[in-house]
Amino acid sequence: MTIEIGTLIYQGKAKGVYETDDPQKVVVEFRDDITAGNGAKKDNLSEKGFWNSIISAKLFEILEEARIRTQYVELIKPGLMLSKKLEMIPLEVITRNIAAGSLLKRYPFEPKQTFEPPIIQIDYKSDEYGDPMLNDDIAIALGLIDEYRLKIIKETTLRINKVLKDFLESKGILFPDFKIEFGYDADGNIVLGDEISPDTCRFWDMETCDTLDKDLFRQGESGVLDAYKKVASMILDDEDKEKWNI
Amino acid sequence: MTIEIGTLIYQGKAKGVYETDDPQKVVVEFRDDITAGNGAKKDNLSEKGFWNSIISAKLFEILEEARIRTQYVELIKPGLMLSKKLEMIPLEVITRNIAAGSLLKRYPFEPKQTFEPPIIQIDYKSDEYGDPMLNDDIAIALGLIDEYRLKIIKETTLRINKVLKDFLESKGILFPDFKIEFGYDADGNIVLGDEISPDTCRFWDMETCDTLDKDLFRQGESGVLDAYKKVASMILDDEDKEKWNI
Ligand SMILES: Nc1ncnc2c1ncn2[C@@H]1O[C@H](COP(=O)(O)OP(=O)(O)O)[C@@H](O)[C@H]1O
Ligand SMILES: Nc1ncnc2c1ncn2[C@@H]1O[C@H](COP(=O)(O)OP(=O)(O)O)[C@@H](O)[C@H]1O
Ligand SMILES: [Mg+2]
Ligand SMILES: [Mg+2]
Repeated sequence: MTIEIGTLIYQGKAKGVYETDDPQKVVVEFRDDITAGNGAKKDNLSEKGFWNSIISAKLFEILEEARIRTQYVELIKPGLMLSKKLEMIPLEVITRNIAAGSLLKRYPFEPKQTFEPPIIQIDYKSDEYGDPMLNDDIAIALGLIDEYRLKIIKETTLRINKVLKDFLESKGILFPDFKIEFGYDADGNIVLGDEISPDTCRFWDMETCDTLDKDLFRQGESGVLDAYKKVASMILDDEDKEKWNI
Repeated sequence: MTIEIGTLIYQGKAKGVYETDDPQKVVVEFRDDITAGNGAKKDNLSEKGFWNSIISAKLFEILEEARIRTQYVELIKPGLMLSKKLEMIPLEVITRNIAAGSLLKRYPFEPKQTFEPPIIQIDYKSDEYGDPMLNDDIAIALGLIDEYRLKIIKETTLRINKVLKDFLESKGILFPDFKIEFGYDADGNIVLGDEISPDTCRFWDMETCDTLDKDLFRQGESGVLDAYKKVASMILDDEDKEKWNI
């Protein structure tokens, strides 16, 4: 199968979205750009797009096996993911299994406190407004989502969390929190889009407790790419590794 | 009835709470201190406590008539409200009928956009953390409330809103938003506490659209006390006015 990569229809902070000859499909390009603090801190991290796309593809495959609807069609090659074209919902759906990050600054949680059930936090995806946190009433009043679809999103997110957490823990990785985005496919189904990678998740090595995600970049530490590579090597099986020649 | 005013058990930014000879009752003292921006802006506004206590007493009476549980026992005299002693829940429960204030800074609502149903927003009452907004999951994970009681609080708040909004509109006052606090009485009932006044509500004159609340102080305008007096004169009946000699 050869895929025609057409016009760039959206250039984000770390990815690009391209049309294809199939109007219901896009190619999501994983770039090496890395940002933090709503774009305040920026850099270019060679090979990051390569590893993020492979990690994302693997996690989408795991979710598809668990019968969760995702954008994922195939990884054309590292960096380029053929995906269902979605009309994105401007919500950042964050799931928290362990207290970390901004949550600790905003509220009196104990660092590494675990949440059972997990906390779901929904932010309004808006660079202009700085991604403010929503509650259900505000999300609905803004017309971002209706009550029924909000319920589907929350339930789906809890299922996604369960599947990914179980998988990652079986590979020696703790899963403190992650951010996902949903969109509508051509039939109006709510489908998981965007990416699931060290840019959008916290991953902690279960044995060493090492951080294996974008927090390293946020904190100005070295070894960011090595951490991303480590995640890939921990979650990929031999077949995957052979396929991508890694 | 003479009431023994005992020890000051809590000194807040605008009120004080005193023990009485009845262990289940306190006297809430309405002071003239006025603050905004989480205490950043401070002043003393002569007679403010007088008028706020009268307005609060009237609105608690309206709610009691509608069979909503409140702290209110009686206004001993302007400034001093005999109240049920409550173990306060550290939540600021905000109801919004019309978009105004911080909501407009944080989200793309239209000024004066109306909300039907109203928006309920719950903040964590914490000077240290700057009263951050919560969502249900976070409030529960913090142990501030459980799911069942949160539901009661929201339902009660919607009832309170309906009763107050209808009453105020019948008196020519629009009710864009307000903040209330609940606590547990000796039997564990959830009871409305604190105050309902121009310090904690937005009140707009229905005819002139004039602001009749603490926004005047926040914006550094004059005539703050006159606005508070006007609210009192609009909502009190002749009997109330005679009683307090106003
Ligand atoms: N399957 C998809 N179809 C269309 N748009 C998508 C899809 N998946 C993700 N997107 C959108 O494409 C953009 C991805 O690029 P990214 O660099 O993450 O952008 P941003 O800076 O807006 O987060 C995001 O805005 C995301 O919402
Ligand atoms: N019925 C009550 N019993 C006990 N405490 C109360 C009652 N009503 C209100 N309070 C508490 O008393 C304080 C009132 O003073 P206030 O100046 O509003 O304080 P704050 O600066 O904490 O808001 C608040 O902390 C409030 O939670
Ligand atoms: Mg993004
Ligand atoms: Mg107060």
